[in-house]
Amino acid sequence: MQLAMVGLGRMGANIVRRLMKDGHDCVVYDVNQDAVAALAAEGATGASSIADLASKLQKPRAVWLMIPAGLTGSVVDQVAEVLEAGDIIIDGGNSNYRDDVRRAAKLQDTGIHYVDIGTSGGVFGLERGYCLMVGGHDEAVAHLEPVLRTIAPGPGDIERTPGRTGDYTPEERGYLHCGPSGAGHFVKMVHNGIEYGIMAALAEGLNVLNNADAGLKQGEHSAEVAPLEEPEFYQFDIDTAKVSELWRRGSVISSWLLDLTAAALAQNPTLDGLAGRVSDSGEGRWTVKAAVDTGVPVPVLASSLFERFASRGEDHFANQVLSAMRLQFGGHQELPAGDVLEAGGKKADSSSS
Amino acid sequence: MQLAMVGLGRMGANIVRRLMKDGHDCVVYDVNQDAVAALAAEGATGASSIADLASKLQKPRAVWLMIPAGLTGSVVDQVAEVLEAGDIIIDGGNSNYRDDVRRAAKLQDTGIHYVDIGTSGGVFGLERGYCLMVGGHDEAVAHLEPVLRTIAPGPGDIERTPGRTGDYTPEERGYLHCGPSGAGHFVKMVHNGIEYGIMAALAEGLNVLNNADAGLKQGEHSAEVAPLEEPEFYQFDIDTAKVSELWRRGSVISSWLLDLTAAALAQNPTLDGLAGRVSDSGEGRWTVKAAVDTGVPVPVLASSLFERFASRGEDHFANQVLSAMRLQFGGHQELPAGDVLEAGGKKADSSSS
Amino acid sequence: MQLAMVGLGRMGANIVRRLMKDGHDCVVYDVNQDAVAALAAEGATGASSIADLASKLQKPRAVWLMIPAGLTGSVVDQVAEVLEAGDIIIDGGNSNYRDDVRRAAKLQDTGIHYVDIGTSGGVFGLERGYCLMVGGHDEAVAHLEPVLRTIAPGPGDIERTPGRTGDYTPEERGYLHCGPSGAGHFVKMVHNGIEYGIMAALAEGLNVLNNADAGLKQGEHSAEVAPLEEPEFYQFDIDTAKVSELWRRGSVISSWLLDLTAAALAQNPTLDGLAGRVSDSGEGRWTVKAAVDTGVPVPVLASSLFERFASRGEDHFANQVLSAMRLQFGGHQELPAGDVLEAGGKKADSSSS
Amino acid sequence: MQLAMVGLGRMGANIVRRLMKDGHDCVVYDVNQDAVAALAAEGATGASSIADLASKLQKPRAVWLMIPAGLTGSVVDQVAEVLEAGDIIIDGGNSNYRDDVRRAAKLQDTGIHYVDIGTSGGVFGLERGYCLMVGGHDEAVAHLEPVLRTIAPGPGDIERTPGRTGDYTPEERGYLHCGPSGAGHFVKMVHNGIEYGIMAALAEGLNVLNNADAGLKQGEHSAEVAPLEEPEFYQFDIDTAKVSELWRRGSVISSWLLDLTAAALAQNPTLDGLAGRVSDSGEGRWTVKAAVDTGVPVPVLASSLFERFASRGEDHFANQVLSAMRLQFGGHQELPAGDVLEAGGKKADSSSS
Repeated sequence: MQLAMVGLGRMGANIVRRLMKDGHDCVVYDVNQDAVAALAAEGATGASSIADLASKLQKPRAVWLMIPAGLTGSVVDQVAEVLEAGDIIIDGGNSNYRDDVRRAAKLQDTGIHYVDIGTSGGVFGLERGYCLMVGGHDEAVAHLEPVLRTIAPGPGDIERTPGRTGDYTPEERGYLHCGPSGAGHFVKMVHNGIEYGIMAALAEGLNVLNNADAGLKQGEHSAEVAPLEEPEFYQFDIDTAKVSELWRRGSVISSWLLDLTAAALAQNPTLDGLAGRVSDSGEGRWTVKAAVDTGVPVPVLASSLFERFASRGEDHFANQVLSAMRLQFGGHQELPAGDVLEAGGKKADSSSS
Repeated sequence: MQLAMVGLGRMGANIVRRLMKDGHDCVVYDVNQDAVAALAAEGATGASSIADLASKLQKPRAVWLMIPAGLTGSVVDQVAEVLEAGDIIIDGGNSNYRDDVRRAAKLQDTGIHYVDIGTSGGVFGLERGYCLMVGGHDEAVAHLEPVLRTIAPGPGDIERTPGRTGDYTPEERGYLHCGPSGAGHFVKMVHNGIEYGIMAALAEGLNVLNNADAGLKQGEHSAEVAPLEEPEFYQFDIDTAKVSELWRRGSVISSWLLDLTAAALAQNPTLDGLAGRVSDSGEGRWTVKAAVDTGVPVPVLASSLFERFASRGEDHFANQVLSAMRLQFGGHQELPAGDVLEAGGKKADSSSS
Repeated sequence: MQLAMVGLGRMGANIVRRLMKDGHDCVVYDVNQDAVAALAAEGATGASSIADLASKLQKPRAVWLMIPAGLTGSVVDQVAEVLEAGDIIIDGGNSNYRDDVRRAAKLQDTGIHYVDIGTSGGVFGLERGYCLMVGGHDEAVAHLEPVLRTIAPGPGDIERTPGRTGDYTPEERGYLHCGPSGAGHFVKMVHNGIEYGIMAALAEGLNVLNNADAGLKQGEHSAEVAPLEEPEFYQFDIDTAKVSELWRRGSVISSWLLDLTAAALAQNPTLDGLAGRVSDSGEGRWTVKAAVDTGVPVPVLASSLFERFASRGEDHFANQVLSAMRLQFGGHQELPAGDVLEAGGKKADSSSS
Repeated sequence: MQLAMVGLGRMGANIVRRLMKDGHDCVVYDVNQDAVAALAAEGATGASSIADLASKLQKPRAVWLMIPAGLTGSVVDQVAEVLEAGDIIIDGGNSNYRDDVRRAAKLQDTGIHYVDIGTSGGVFGLERGYCLMVGGHDEAVAHLEPVLRTIAPGPGDIERTPGRTGDYTPEERGYLHCGPSGAGHFVKMVHNGIEYGIMAALAEGLNVLNNADAGLKQGEHSAEVAPLEEPEFYQFDIDTAKVSELWRRGSVISSWLLDLTAAALAQNPTLDGLAGRVSDSGEGRWTVKAAVDTGVPVPVLASSLFERFASRGEDHFANQVLSAMRLQFGGHQELPAGDVLEAGGKKADSSSS
């Protein structure tokens, strides 16, 4: 079928390539006309403007936006200007599902359908396919089924879930109509919230392994930090690169994120050069806020988010407050980084707390 | 090569079967002689006692114990009685790595080697192979290499980690000599700690999805519970069974634990009949304690453990204390389960807190 | 000075009483005219309607609303109808500070001032005074200073903070102009967020004390739950009522919430009759959401909120998911409540995870 | 009565002073003979050795050790050498309660009593008195009652807990016999665990206040960090020094730790010069480990401990692992500290996760 793509960054362009490879007809537009030309050279129909794009589409038109979340609102408005009742606008970017709910409501009178698609797959999506979480009206989503099926990974060689038989369902092909407008990005949001939690579980565990040699290190604790009490049990020099490779085979925690961890540690076993300032995009935050709104306890998902905040120093004032209190109640001075064990005389006083 | 197995429960028996299928010679013992007879019928050499077992082995003898952790200490002692310097005792069960450290030290004078092997793989291990995390002296571990290679999954059809070339390393075959005695169970311990975290991330996320319909439910909140503020954003009736199946394809969080989740939800989409009292075995606890000992922050791993405690009602007294405080400072009565929204008049008073 | 009070629930009425005791002139209104009559009998001027109330006030009128948060919006509108430029509407209830920001903006054209006051003090406020966190324009807040000073606790016999000298500042008298509209409820919101955290710290700690006798209890753990490893260290039968009383004297954690805990446990040492279903009002949730918005790590505040959610069973589906996964990977059956230690044979198999 | 003090650091010396002021007879010893001379000048009886100390005491002798936890074991042994059946050794330091259990067992055959006393009060104890948590045999603790009563704060002017009448109980005087040997330090351990939680609740909350101006700051977020979505709600410039002073009066969270916070912020409102590297002594760790052992969920107490670990950079490797994974799956580069908002084009690609 025919699909228009607005936004030809890495993901937009790769989705177009995946579609064309499967025989779909793509009309493409980007403010960067070089990007348009590049895909036109690969077989797409280029457009010089959004109006031009619309004019090159058969009805019902389907226009997929793959653009930065901050721009989506205004581009939806521009696209809606040149579309008609029965046409479909697809937001395949990283929008907050609340914006989908609002945009769908706003478009309702025009008869233009709004479909939100959460898209997971990363740089591997071109080959591996993209996992698609779709929200919108039944009619519009049904119309898009051929392109969704192409963009998604398909059943592949993944072992079928026990109990599932017969024809493959959409979810087994890697796309799912999750509900009305917003449902797609809602599910994608939670997906990313889970992703943060899994990443943190792996990272924390590897950090424990990395410190299994604590008993081999001498004199690195000061009187203000609890000394290692049983150093004989922390004498292991664990190779985390090898362990993460090992766990890929037959272990309960084998996973794609573990695959990536193993790859990263194979390339850079000590992770030299990484400062450990971990970014977060909106989904992890929105997941925690949705959980708070609906009264769902998510200590793991929230902790993983807060660890990222702290990794960027956002815990600094809180830590200063703690140091300030300790200074007040016990005269505890802060330790300089790398301070060594002091004579014990000071320790008795800390009984004061 | 030849290996003796003591303890013919599901895992012990399956490891023996996997070994025999690959041509190894197995001598087996269990207090349950029916279990011995069953495996003898499949080709193993049965033993009637531990002494009998030792007599049927060539030196250096290798005796693998696959027995409940609570019994391991005394069986190690019994086996050590009938072995000699250069022989090897393997603990493949769920021991605390600290017991390994102690047992290895205790055996040192006898010249008997002690090898601890953390084993992951569950009920799928017979076919899929077991991920083996090994601790012990180089010499002993080297001697066991042929059986480790058989028990482990091997490279299989798992995509090779980018950057790895040449012959497959042991970790790519699914077994790894992690360090001296205790290192195997230490790595297995952390593996399980991570497992708890990943499981919790998935469970919390699915719980958020499961409550995405909060805005569709009427009158279920009382004056003492914060009402849903923007019900228009929680109107989704998400099918968690379909979503977990979907995420198996192309998503960042695809993992074996997700596969199991999808299987569980495919069989029982509402999870009827499960009370949600979640057990924990020692490894998750030991991981948190090791992290505390070595000063490693593990909020995600610890939270996942505490959620299990709470699922069994171990938070009860704490919650009573909270209710008691609330009753003191604001006259807030506890809400009965399922209480409905009361007239707002009471709410103003809660400003008192 | 003169102040009007709309909403004569416990807090509204007590503030009026505190004001009259200090010589202020109060005009009062409530939909419940009995409440109006009661306060009129104590010296207040009763009003039969909001319009009547307005007519009985000198300009600039100051009208304090002490009503359920859900009603505040519409009552603000009604009161604004009968006021004029220069008059002041005060919201002393539990509003979300975001509503203050919106309401102040909405009133801007009318010239009516909007002042939000977060009020802490509970049932003890009548005697002890109320801690007042105030947001709004300088001019309006300055006009209210006489009543704020009366309602607040004053310096009392609380030891002065070292380094503070000279006249008492407003904050030392128990009220503070925190910033523009919304700032008062923002500070109150965070206050309550902290309150949740402190309450949880006390509750968790007392729960640890309450389980210090774990080693004295026999056979209460099953094979699926990690058994107590060193029962000799958990042989204490601690009296939490006495301990909480003890800590009130000279300890670092002495606090008003501890006072309440000691009072609750003195009355009901076993907390019989409390189900431990802990409510939450909006502030704890809003605090976590504000922290997430601004990238501030708040693991303690969030955990204390999530514990309340879990106390009401909101973790149920997540726990079912965990049990379902365990059933899949290891054949682990859930434990019935109160299950006892099984023979060890089953434990070995749990090595499979 | 007569008491011997071994260890004349700040706390030991101040306890002696408090005892002498109340008429008790103190015999004192320290390896630092200047400290002995100083207290002798104030009226104590100095001793030149532990043997000399013992010789100057009437039976049953009571010897209080106030020394660094790391030295306590050997000093207990030395003191036991010169004591006799019926004498009492008191450990008033910061010992792990497990050491108390072990030491009491070891001394059992000698007939020497071992009493452990957890002591809270900090630098204010000399004037304010020390909160004493006592473990040991009834007989020995009863013998010490006169000195415990003196060292403790007494009922003071703290409002009596409602429901308590008649003579003041020991816990109302500030000391409590909590149970057998170890119970004192166990209760003190949990006290400090709670302290960590309360401190963290205050610190996190103040950090939220400190970031209430996030909407006023421009261009400080990059494409890889979720931008502030509703800056209009974060326009407050809150004075945390004033707010912490305010909350001391009439608020629900008034507490001694808040008093200290207010004092610290009064002296240094921006906390300049504090690096925010927060130390931890053993009690917070032991509390979490005891909770894990006994299956008690303590997410708040554990989170507060982990925040301290992270404040010292112990989360570094975990954060590097997270950055490494992000680099793998989405090509996300780490952000340099202080990076500014990039053009939006990059953001679309982050949809890949």
